[in-house]
Amino acid sequence: MISSTAEYALRAMSWLALTPDERVASSALAEKTLVPVDYLAKVLQLLGDAGFIEGRRGVRGGYRLAKPAGEIRLLDIVNAVSRNELQLKPIEACPLGIKSHGAALCPLHRTMDRAIAAVMDVLGDRTLADLVSEEDAPTPLCESRAGIGVSVKRT
Amino acid sequence: MISSTAEYALRAMSWLALTPDERVASSALAEKTLVPVDYLAKVLQLLGDAGFIEGRRGVRGGYRLAKPAGEIRLLDIVNAVSRNELQLKPIEACPLGIKSHGAALCPLHRTMDRAIAAVMDVLGDRTLADLVSEEDAPTPLCESRAGIGVSVKRT
Repeated sequence: MISSTAEYALRAMSWLALTPDERVASSALAEKTLVPVDYLAKVLQLLGDAGFIEGRRGVRGGYRLAKPAGEIRLLDIVNAVSRNELQLKPIEACPLGIKSHGAALCPLHRTMDRAIAAVMDVLGDRTLADLVSEEDAPTPLCESRAGIGVSVKRT
Repeated sequence: MISSTAEYALRAMSWLALTPDERVASSALAEKTLVPVDYLAKVLQLLGDAGFIEGRRGVRGGYRLAKPAGEIRLLDIVNAVSRNELQLKPIEACPLGIKSHGAALCPLHRTMDRAIAAVMDVLGDRTLADLVSEEDAPTPLCESRAGIGVSVKRT
């Protein structure tokens, strides 16, 4: 249900949230997240456009979060990288443009709207910080906490 | 969140559920569902492969449901036409193959699993018959019940 693009964005953002004190080169990020480097470049572009990350070129360059992990909802990450049809947003009018339906959705689109609302509830309720701050849980993308080489900073 | 393919499949199946007594030509189905005819052909192929519809060639040919609408869950329609990454199914092991995670998902994949479960709840709980049998609701795909030219058969 989650597109590859959205999943890759969540992985990349999780990694950056786990390493808040460093800039991560896109090649390293690709390696850590197991995302093809060209595909990752496109995802990073979208995340940058959305204001979630900022990158710098050069020897000491790389990417880092542009705002605290606690201020970035998973829902907003998914929507930042998803093309229109896969965006998580309420269906506000008949997608077929049937005039008599108007704002009163038919049972098909009402059901789809309910499914979307259920996902929005889950992903709108959690931030990146929630993902990386859980005690006694495996760290996203890592074999173990020791594997990331830096302490996990809770924001 | 719902892919175009899944949405088109749900539209086509809804139309066939609304016209249980006739075979519908793919051109007519494309017109009624506002789906490009070539795209619809691929969707119909997948729905046929899944055993939800059956088609017949010729002058009196066309498509119809292969089983009662009450026995076809919306969840199964979506999964029948969705490529692997967009399937609605539980995440049973770390998608990155991280050995130490195993069946204990990290917070990222546990959250995604929860989002998927929420959608599965909504779409697994409703059948095609539910969509076309609601009183006092706009009929899927139609300007009005009169617009479909046949009585709505409740299964």
